[in-house]
Amino acid sequence: MKALLAFTATLLLMITPTLAADAPYRHVVFFKFKDSASAEQVKGIETAFAELAKKIDTVKGFEWGTNVSPEGLNDGFTHCFFVTFADKAGLETYLPHAAHQEFVGKLKPLLDKVCVLDYVAR
Amino acid sequence: MKALLAFTATLLLMITPTLAADAPYRHVVFFKFKDSASAEQVKGIETAFAELAKKIDTVKGFEWGTNVSPEGLNDGFTHCFFVTFADKAGLETYLPHAAHQEFVGKLKPLLDKVCVLDYVAR
Repeated sequence: MKALLAFTATLLLMITPTLAADAPYRHVVFFKFKDSASAEQVKGIETAFAELAKKIDTVKGFEWGTNVSPEGLNDGFTHCFFVTFADKAGLETYLPHAAHQEFVGKLKPLLDKVCVLDYVAR
Repeated sequence: MKALLAFTATLLLMITPTLAADAPYRHVVFFKFKDSASAEQVKGIETAFAELAKKIDTVKGFEWGTNVSPEGLNDGFTHCFFVTFADKAGLETYLPHAAHQEFVGKLKPLLDKVCVLDYVAR
């Protein structure tokens, strides 16, 4: 019985983020780097974005990956970063945050273009 | 005790999709509709995409929303559809599926441009 209670408590903790993410605010970011950006510099940005997500506590979810679509409709974009906030206020804390500004400063010289679309998940 | 068992079973069912989504394959789709597309036509596509996601069983997750980003970096795109498959094979079943092809046929006359980026979540 004790074990079942402990197990249930653990499950509750595990699903809490899912429950809290009801109608989450999604921040979808596509990057295309300049041809002059080295593989090492691109890797530096990937790492820096992941670190950034840990530094700002309104970031509730973070994942990313490089394009693997077979459709060829990516218009040159190679990276997608998918950042989740509880609400728009979370993004509004994130954008002007010193850690985000520092990241943008590091990113800009390497970036060819960016596309950002945010939505409240339905 | 019975109630606790039932509760635990329910919790297990609830978290199963989360656990199964280890390294999921994400299919991120941005749309910009033609100026000539009516609000009703756009709403028809939103509904049809949601219906499509239910018709193809390799679709493991589906959400969408319209752009609310304050950054103005959306390059005219107004809609994001975020489709999750277990793996690339799931997408490869989806793309040529009759239901998807029918959806694309309905969409194309209304679409100004599209951007698609797939990634395996890290």
